[in-house]
Amino acid sequence: MARLPGLGPRSARRAVLHLVRRRGQLLGPLAEAMAEVARTARECVSCGNIATDDLCPICADPKRATGLLCVVEDVGDLWAMERTGAFTGRYHVLGGTLSALDDVGPEDLGLPRLEARIGAEAVTEVILALNATVDGLTTAHYVADLLEGRVQVTSLAQGVPVGGELDYLDDGTIGAALKARRRL
Amino acid sequence: MARLPGLGPRSARRAVLHLVRRRGQLLGPLAEAMAEVARTARECVSCGNIATDDLCPICADPKRATGLLCVVEDVGDLWAMERTGAFTGRYHVLGGTLSALDDVGPEDLGLPRLEARIGAEAVTEVILALNATVDGLTTAHYVADLLEGRVQVTSLAQGVPVGGELDYLDDGTIGAALKARRRL
Repeated sequence: MARLPGLGPRSARRAVLHLVRRRGQLLGPLAEAMAEVARTARECVSCGNIATDDLCPICADPKRATGLLCVVEDVGDLWAMERTGAFTGRYHVLGGTLSALDDVGPEDLGLPRLEARIGAEAVTEVILALNATVDGLTTAHYVADLLEGRVQVTSLAQGVPVGGELDYLDDGTIGAALKARRRL
Repeated sequence: MARLPGLGPRSARRAVLHLVRRRGQLLGPLAEAMAEVARTARECVSCGNIATDDLCPICADPKRATGLLCVVEDVGDLWAMERTGAFTGRYHVLGGTLSALDDVGPEDLGLPRLEARIGAEAVTEVILALNATVDGLTTAHYVADLLEGRVQVTSLAQGVPVGGELDYLDDGTIGAALKARRRL
């Protein structure tokens, strides 16, 4: 338990004790649910999302716009985009970012698979929703170069977050927001 | 001392004790500096920044672009913009936001003074760098309506902050960043 993210040895001990005390209502059902997930969970063959079938519910949904493809780093980011309810297209999960240090190359991220999808699904716009970190930006530039001329590539806007106060924002964000200012 | 922001009664006592112990090196010079500031500090007659003369150093600097005016909520935001070094124009400090609850109207924010400056200084673009809070957005809309047709009004871009990871951002920010996506 102590190897779970966010749980130190101390809180792991507390959680284990809690589970053991309520083994009837909590530990048994949890063990069953975990076994069930371990048996059925796999990656969507199309987008890389977590699924119980070959296709995840999003890829299998005929109502999702097929021409729009949102590239995210991992499944957590896909869930974050889905929570907003603002995106109606489909996803493509890279499973990481390019990294020369960790020896992660284009093949490891399934970029050939992304290129194949663009042709096969008649994609008109690829939205890069990668993290605004150094690794994320490097990967975004690589993917944008790779797809240039074949499809329209856009990325999430950079700027002031909702509720953000200038006084507490870093200089880079204010600078980016100033450069990308828009007409009212 | 306990009435300073960020100082509770306990830390105020510690600070006072520290000052009294070193009254020679610390308390005397600090008192003199404070008296000096209290005597000389005032508002820049043009922009509302803190100044020691009638005009603040920014308004008095002939190298600052006169056609570009950046509207900020208070002096702290002006300093935040200046820290980025990305803005070469001049400022206009509102000193607050419109608020029906607190009975703050357009006159209290010196909006007539802003309108006068736009004519007098041949301003071509007003950049609204207000906080992305409800009050800030309300004020931005009011100012944009007020100046419509007389000068180009822009605002800071909303989106993902530098270093931001999607998984930790609120839905509103991701939604705004998606809507304002830009071509790469």
